[in-house]
Amino acid sequence: MSFENNADMSVSQVFKLAEKFNCFYLTGLKSPDYKPFLVEGFQVGLIRPDVMKQLLKYPEVFCVSSGYVELNPAFRDYEERSTQVERVLKAIRAENALIALKGWRDEASISLFKFNNHCYEVKTEFASKSFFKIDRSAVCLFGIKSYGVSINGYTNHPAKGLCLWFQKRSATKQTWPGKWDNMVGGGVSVGQGVLETVHKEAMEEASVPQSLLKNLISAGCVSFFFESERGLFPNTEFVFDLELPLDYVPRNADGEVETFEMVSADACIDKIASPEFKTTSAPITVDFLIRHGIITAENEKDFLKIVELVHVPLQRIYKRNRDTPIVNNIIKENGTSATLKNM
Amino acid sequence: MSFENNADMSVSQVFKLAEKFNCFYLTGLKSPDYKPFLVEGFQVGLIRPDVMKQLLKYPEVFCVSSGYVELNPAFRDYEERSTQVERVLKAIRAENALIALKGWRDEASISLFKFNNHCYEVKTEFASKSFFKIDRSAVCLFGIKSYGVSINGYTNHPAKGLCLWFQKRSATKQTWPGKWDNMVGGGVSVGQGVLETVHKEAMEEASVPQSLLKNLISAGCVSFFFESERGLFPNTEFVFDLELPLDYVPRNADGEVETFEMVSADACIDKIASPEFKTTSAPITVDFLIRHGIITAENEKDFLKIVELVHVPLQRIYKRNRDTPIVNNIIKENGTSATLKNM
Repeated sequence: MSFENNADMSVSQVFKLAEKFNCFYLTGLKSPDYKPFLVEGFQVGLIRPDVMKQLLKYPEVFCVSSGYVELNPAFRDYEERSTQVERVLKAIRAENALIALKGWRDEASISLFKFNNHCYEVKTEFASKSFFKIDRSAVCLFGIKSYGVSINGYTNHPAKGLCLWFQKRSATKQTWPGKWDNMVGGGVSVGQGVLETVHKEAMEEASVPQSLLKNLISAGCVSFFFESERGLFPNTEFVFDLELPLDYVPRNADGEVETFEMVSADACIDKIASPEFKTTSAPITVDFLIRHGIITAENEKDFLKIVELVHVPLQRIYKRNRDTPIVNNIIKENGTSATLKNM
Repeated sequence: MSFENNADMSVSQVFKLAEKFNCFYLTGLKSPDYKPFLVEGFQVGLIRPDVMKQLLKYPEVFCVSSGYVELNPAFRDYEERSTQVERVLKAIRAENALIALKGWRDEASISLFKFNNHCYEVKTEFASKSFFKIDRSAVCLFGIKSYGVSINGYTNHPAKGLCLWFQKRSATKQTWPGKWDNMVGGGVSVGQGVLETVHKEAMEEASVPQSLLKNLISAGCVSFFFESERGLFPNTEFVFDLELPLDYVPRNADGEVETFEMVSADACIDKIASPEFKTTSAPITVDFLIRHGIITAENEKDFLKIVELVHVPLQRIYKRNRDTPIVNNIIKENGTSATLKNM
């Protein structure tokens, strides 16, 4: 199974965590049960059997063939595609058929603090044109690449050394309620740029004043591919470092954060590896600890693999198109596939 | 050819450079003309036709079949493999058949300052056990993954802002003579660890005193896959950041550096993109500029792809083994392959 010829079989906590937040990349990605989702001939996602079972009910929107699912190519433009997809998703939500859609955000439920529309663009690559927009809660049903920002708020404490700030998500959050998380984070929604999103989230989640925001340093990005019961999460986070004064305490403004805590660097790994930490936020902290010399080649036998697992190459991960050879199998009514000879 | 649906066809200087130092990863990697090189059943490299032509002369050491080249599995251990490979390489060098071997380093030519043996371990992954050792100059003939260290020496100048130090390689260097390079760098040789190598190179190349070396910060690693006329370079560099005082000037101790120069951050991209810069050192600087907020999503349309191109997943890039299906083709005497029907 493995080409590993290493006699030392022990696996570190960080490496286990990196495999956990990449569970789909490492095991599910090659599975024939996940069908490419195509739009205008380009693959933008993957459809799992439980989702397939629902999409089969809407053949005028989702054209299911044996090799892939394609959004009806007769839809003329961005608006029409967006509207048709939203219609289907609302119908699926009304049936309570998929847990991800319980987080659907109608205009009526948008809080006073957040004026964005909680929709994400659906594209092949970040710099590509968008085919349509989709509610954030539905992105994981299609394995659509999503983009967010995260701030590593840190301080150099004279006694404790390097320390990182974390937030505890409110118990009323739609996703990962009550879990620990990076100090600030949020998705890049329709019509918003990266920097504008990071500033907005910094003010809403942690009340970071302008005088400190000017110290934000773009520090790269982190990518991974996770799967949960809710769906598929090929995520890329634009990461920012923010060195904070010793006396600064984050203060939440939008009701989405229960509390904040400062943790010394050497206690961070236990914190992010615990079940109380949002799995899809751990990669950002792992990357920070690598860049700041806390996770190193000296203390991590699998250091190189850990670095690779926070930089999974997602931009070109979806390679299928209409011409890719179709395996001769069929989609059954329960959404799974079978080769004709097994029927 | 491409799944790109982006209307903006302009490509940035940094993105072009990232494609250049990954020329093999992006184009050559899937070519059937490069044959897997196996040892004890595991792939550790790739053989190009010009090298294949030479190896065919030594069938008692390199067993060439239609699908791959394998080091004679009858060799009993590390010592025997190393000795046999060295014997063949010396014979090839004596014929002046491959330019890479002109850099062969006999014991007699080791300078007083360098007591390492200039050999690299041949392994599947960094943490794996080594099958044999090979002279550094020959590594590229087999596309063996090589590991090095690099130091980004930088300073925060009150007027010029962030500045990086670069070295100009001596005109007598075996490889990339006279080219500009990162302030300090070197390969991780047999018997040496990462940290020990970085300290050694810092002292030999730039005379960095102990009092400053303690400020070294491990900052991750960078991987890419380059090809030149000399051979194949799947390289991983362990990168270290070192903030230096304003009045510090690097001073070479081992004769391998002609001079040093400090360059402000905004002039770095022109410097590393110029033909006077060692191509395989540019990734380290690109990564530094990303981590320090100089190359950002705001100023680079292809930011995400650039980040991916300094973190190419090399650890598992060689996946072939004896059981991988063999394409029905043959190796011709000039080292190229042909399918039987073309003969």
